Amino acid sequence: MNEYIQSTIEQISTPDERAMAAARERQATLTKPAGSLGRLEELSVQIAGITGVAQPMVSQKVIVVMAGDHGVVAEGVSAYPAEVTPQMMANMVYGGAAINVLSEQAGVRIALVDIGVAAEMIAHPKLINKKVAKGTMNMAHGPAMTEEQTLAAVSAGMEVVEAEIEKGLDILATGEMGIGNTTPSAAIAAILTGQPVDVIVGRGTGVDDQGLERKQVAVQTALKVNEPDPGDGFDILMKVGGFEIAGLTGAILAAAAHRKPVVIDGFISTAAAMLAVQMAPHVRHFLLAGHQSLERGHALMMDWLGLEPLLNLKMRLGEGSGAVLAMYLVEAACRILSEMATFEEAGVAGKAQPLLAA
Amino acid sequence: MNEYIQSTIEQISTPDERAMAAARERQATLTKPAGSLGRLEELSVQIAGITGVAQPMVSQKVIVVMAGDHGVVAEGVSAYPAEVTPQMMANMVYGGAAINVLSEQAGVRIALVDIGVAAEMIAHPKLINKKVAKGTMNMAHGPAMTEEQTLAAVSAGMEVVEAEIEKGLDILATGEMGIGNTTPSAAIAAILTGQPVDVIVGRGTGVDDQGLERKQVAVQTALKVNEPDPGDGFDILMKVGGFEIAGLTGAILAAAAHRKPVVIDGFISTAAAMLAVQMAPHVRHFLLAGHQSLERGHALMMDWLGLEPLLNLKMRLGEGSGAVLAMYLVEAACRILSEMATFEEAGVAGKAQPLLAA
Repeated sequence: MNEYIQSTIEQISTPDERAMAAARERQATLTKPAGSLGRLEELSVQIAGITGVAQPMVSQKVIVVMAGDHGVVAEGVSAYPAEVTPQMMANMVYGGAAINVLSEQAGVRIALVDIGVAAEMIAHPKLINKKVAKGTMNMAHGPAMTEEQTLAAVSAGMEVVEAEIEKGLDILATGEMGIGNTTPSAAIAAILTGQPVDVIVGRGTGVDDQGLERKQVAVQTALKVNEPDPGDGFDILMKVGGFEIAGLTGAILAAAAHRKPVVIDGFISTAAAMLAVQMAPHVRHFLLAGHQSLERGHALMMDWLGLEPLLNLKMRLGEGSGAVLAMYLVEAACRILSEMATFEEAGVAGKAQPLLAA
Repeated sequence: MNEYIQSTIEQISTPDERAMAAARERQATLTKPAGSLGRLEELSVQIAGITGVAQPMVSQKVIVVMAGDHGVVAEGVSAYPAEVTPQMMANMVYGGAAINVLSEQAGVRIALVDIGVAAEMIAHPKLINKKVAKGTMNMAHGPAMTEEQTLAAVSAGMEVVEAEIEKGLDILATGEMGIGNTTPSAAIAAILTGQPVDVIVGRGTGVDDQGLERKQVAVQTALKVNEPDPGDGFDILMKVGGFEIAGLTGAILAAAAHRKPVVIDGFISTAAAMLAVQMAPHVRHFLLAGHQSLERGHALMMDWLGLEPLLNLKMRLGEGSGAVLAMYLVEAACRILSEMATFEEAGVAGKAQPLLAA
């Protein structure tokens, strides 16, 4: 840990109980049967606790999309070659990817970060250059990153979020792009959940049966070769993680330190969130699970985090697609809390009150 | 059946297979692993089939909120008195209800209809007056509506939707307000699903144990007294339905006849949709289930319709709240289909193609 990471972790605190109580109290006065908006009501209370604001709004929405490549693709773990990572980055820069379409609809600002793509990327105003290296090393042979690289990548993620907070940020979503990145994410999930590798490893972008087997072997080999310490998130990250995962871990830590809610996306984002929670357990309170990914193992990761996904649309794309969709529900929850009339304002009878004629 | 209803039903046809095939084909060319957007992809294909447009857009969104009162509240079936119906209507007119907040966020136009509220409502530009009567009769004593009233209410629902189509409508959501209306809805669901009353009847806005028992007795009595024909949707509607339910049935029939997708809301909307499907089985293709309501029995109704809800947020408010939230997902699905780049456009390698350097 460097000092920047350490001091960020130390800033992460617990939810604001007073703001939560005030939000709960207001919910009870709104013109609807108590509890009838279910998870929207719970969400509004959670966001109040995170932000410390009794009637929070989440108008400034940002998704950070971290991109990196993985040495472990040499083991034949992905249906796509690594060259697709920079190509999809270009697609995101020019607005053609799913995350662009969904962010445009949702009014979400995209912070697209090259943190470890294995290609020379052209400078572009829509691309944030935080490249630590051109892809990780092959975790089936040794640690994916050096200690120095890991520290640099986590710090870069924190810096990106702090820069976005400067521009204005009420809520953060996490996304990523990186061919092969379900493989390190599965390794992280297997270590932290303690579940067997074959229960966690899935088909990612769509490997066939042989690819799936190669992927399982790669994860098992990486765990055997590196022997990461299950109680040390940083050690796990360094040995079987990746640059975009480290960047997201840093992003989540920074958001929590600044009391900003974080909507996590699917398999890879969840692995990063697990590491952040391992490093700083209070992070858990700042997390919202955007969606249940179709990727095998994701439900077990949700259980480990104690989160219930907001959406379940059988998606498995990544990029932050599920998180950005779910931000709409978080915004709805906050609007309901602030904008609905109370029974008193509306002149609608409470259950037990005498009634006025219409 | 009158001629208007009959001719509307006759217009309801099957999905456009050509448009669906074109949408499926385009989905396969977009810059994402095939199938990775899960239900969003399926939704886009369904909307193509409904509208007959290969790349449909659902920019003009309308929710019809039908309001009516119920004679059966005399049996003590609701936690709120009937006077709350007109009060909540006023709240909707002045923008303070949940459906106002959610519709504002979603850019959805509200068509608020008094179709059977048991009070004199003041004329207001935001209130559509289609009042058939001041509430239904008590179905525990006899039919809830006369045949004439039922025909008038179904026709009114059709008229409202046709007027909205005139103004511009790409997609319809259904909502309602009516103290006591989970009771007739439960009766309809029990008849059509063939399930026992105690499996279907729930707590609605929140009745206590005694209220729940009174509600079950009221439904059982209504079924015994009226003996509705399970094979005749119109007979069921007349005997154990209600004005807002009939209005929604008409609205759904008209939307399907005009090839507009319909996002149904929770328990009451689903009962109305079941009646529409009973009257015109092809209606099923035009329906999307907005959300899984927390109200007991709703999951069985979804099964009967063969629908899988888009959202599951433990909501049980009605008004159309779940349907309006889900419209966002339908719009996302259509935007993805039209606005994402194809592999060819983006210059991203297909799985098997040789790759260009970035």
